[in-house]
Amino acid sequence: MSVFTRVTADELAAWLKRYAIGTLLDMQGIAAGVENTNYFVTTSHGRFVLTLFEKLGAAELPFYLNLMAHLARHGIPCPAPIADEDNDYLGTLNGKPATLVTCLPGAPVPAPGVLHCERVGAVLADMHLAGRSYGGALENPRGPMWWREAAGKVMPFLDEDRRALLQTELEFQSRHRFVELPRGPVHADLFRDNVLFDGERIGGVIDFYFAGIDALLFDVAVTVNDWCVDSSGGIDAARGTALLSAYRRAREFSAAEHDAWPVMLRAGALRFWLSRLHDFYLPRAGELTHAHDPEHFRRVLEARRAHPDPLA
Amino acid sequence: MSVFTRVTADELAAWLKRYAIGTLLDMQGIAAGVENTNYFVTTSHGRFVLTLFEKLGAAELPFYLNLMAHLARHGIPCPAPIADEDNDYLGTLNGKPATLVTCLPGAPVPAPGVLHCERVGAVLADMHLAGRSYGGALENPRGPMWWREAAGKVMPFLDEDRRALLQTELEFQSRHRFVELPRGPVHADLFRDNVLFDGERIGGVIDFYFAGIDALLFDVAVTVNDWCVDSSGGIDAARGTALLSAYRRAREFSAAEHDAWPVMLRAGALRFWLSRLHDFYLPRAGELTHAHDPEHFRRVLEARRAHPDPLA
Repeated sequence: MSVFTRVTADELAAWLKRYAIGTLLDMQGIAAGVENTNYFVTTSHGRFVLTLFEKLGAAELPFYLNLMAHLARHGIPCPAPIADEDNDYLGTLNGKPATLVTCLPGAPVPAPGVLHCERVGAVLADMHLAGRSYGGALENPRGPMWWREAAGKVMPFLDEDRRALLQTELEFQSRHRFVELPRGPVHADLFRDNVLFDGERIGGVIDFYFAGIDALLFDVAVTVNDWCVDSSGGIDAARGTALLSAYRRAREFSAAEHDAWPVMLRAGALRFWLSRLHDFYLPRAGELTHAHDPEHFRRVLEARRAHPDPLA
Repeated sequence: MSVFTRVTADELAAWLKRYAIGTLLDMQGIAAGVENTNYFVTTSHGRFVLTLFEKLGAAELPFYLNLMAHLARHGIPCPAPIADEDNDYLGTLNGKPATLVTCLPGAPVPAPGVLHCERVGAVLADMHLAGRSYGGALENPRGPMWWREAAGKVMPFLDEDRRALLQTELEFQSRHRFVELPRGPVHADLFRDNVLFDGERIGGVIDFYFAGIDALLFDVAVTVNDWCVDSSGGIDAARGTALLSAYRRAREFSAAEHDAWPVMLRAGALRFWLSRLHDFYLPRAGELTHAHDPEHFRRVLEARRAHPDPLA
């Protein structure tokens, strides 16, 4: 369950007086998500999502909320934070940092086709274009420094083969610094769960709480590794081509990005293999049931190493 | 017709490259409106409204666009301007100042009932609450100074009775300055045409191009004079009570506002009688067919003078 902090209707109705969104009609806890407490909130003006942040704090939240607001006002279909009477996006409810965002239409598509992948590639490119004028600064918290830290923690749990794979991949990646790649705000977690399709149209891109400043190409690699993956960890050519072509029609790769692409696909796989290993072997209390099988991303990483440029 | 400046699909597609809203799928001229050129624009990301401003310029437009953006990010269902690659809401298309805003669901309700009036009162109060933190400055361009100017122009066209009514009302209003009333951004034109109902819910409050800083109570008076009027120009008690009660549940009148209410209802009627007289007798080229009958607001003004506090 994902309601870690309970909020009663009376508490919420009182809190909503700081907002200009009408009166509370209904609230429902949301089961999805493992990081925060979420409620659907219906007022006389419409539907919103209330999030209470269980771990994130004032150091990161303004970056995420301002990024969502920035992208939304550029026409990206993402949740728009609602400002309160003090013009702030972030408040406090029941002792937790809390925010209200717009509720977007649609539902995730667990088994996407070519058309879905094309739409995702196009919206990701538009997010990167709109992000160019964003002024926020927060290094991707799951970047190379975190990889080394997480690797140190999970290494003792791994067998020899996996330990060797992790070690050699970290060494390989450390030889590629990507300083010449275009950087900007990246979603960094644009998995199938985080895109709502309203029919064939993207109703919403959600869950920006892993975002940060990084190479834009890293975002593309993470997205392709999820949306276009086949059962063996390889990349499905039709879906991969659809996603990449749509992305590059809106934002063409630079020469440096073209060269870095095979390495970046491995970096994207490494980052998620590491976080899944970490969540699996070092779960926080009450989170074991949500841990994904780390083996999926080991297979993805092996596949990217075996076929460095699967769409070439 | 309201497409004063033609835009071709090729011109629009090229212009949209400055935005992150995907590629152009469709565009349709919008027949409503007499001030600007409007198109519905459908892109791969959704529906938007393109407006080319035919008369308004850089002096007023930032106030309107920033106000809409401010209200939208406070959760008011109003068009949200879309920022371009330079982070600007205002661009230039075919020589005219131009902006893209979100397209909102719903349609106007020409014959509103009690429930509609209640919703309009609530959203108007929320607009005023959200407007408190808005920093823009533009005096209501249709305020007392404009009344005197417009009256001077239309007076020669009026018969003796109407001339006397206009003169005495201007004198009466000049004795009431309302300096003590709460002020802020007002829509100032919240007629039935400018509220879209999506079922029983307000999908959108539109057309902010008469907005300005004025007494909030003036906005309430203008709104009541349209939404709650009966065929004789009087106020329908059920609709009037519903609108005012809903407004005051969200933002209670101050003592000064309570005292000023009967005078403000007359001020709201005077302002629109004057603008309709002006549009009727001094039309701009090509606008005659849109001129409303000025007599309606003369009857409203007479009714407010005869029954100064119709809901007391």
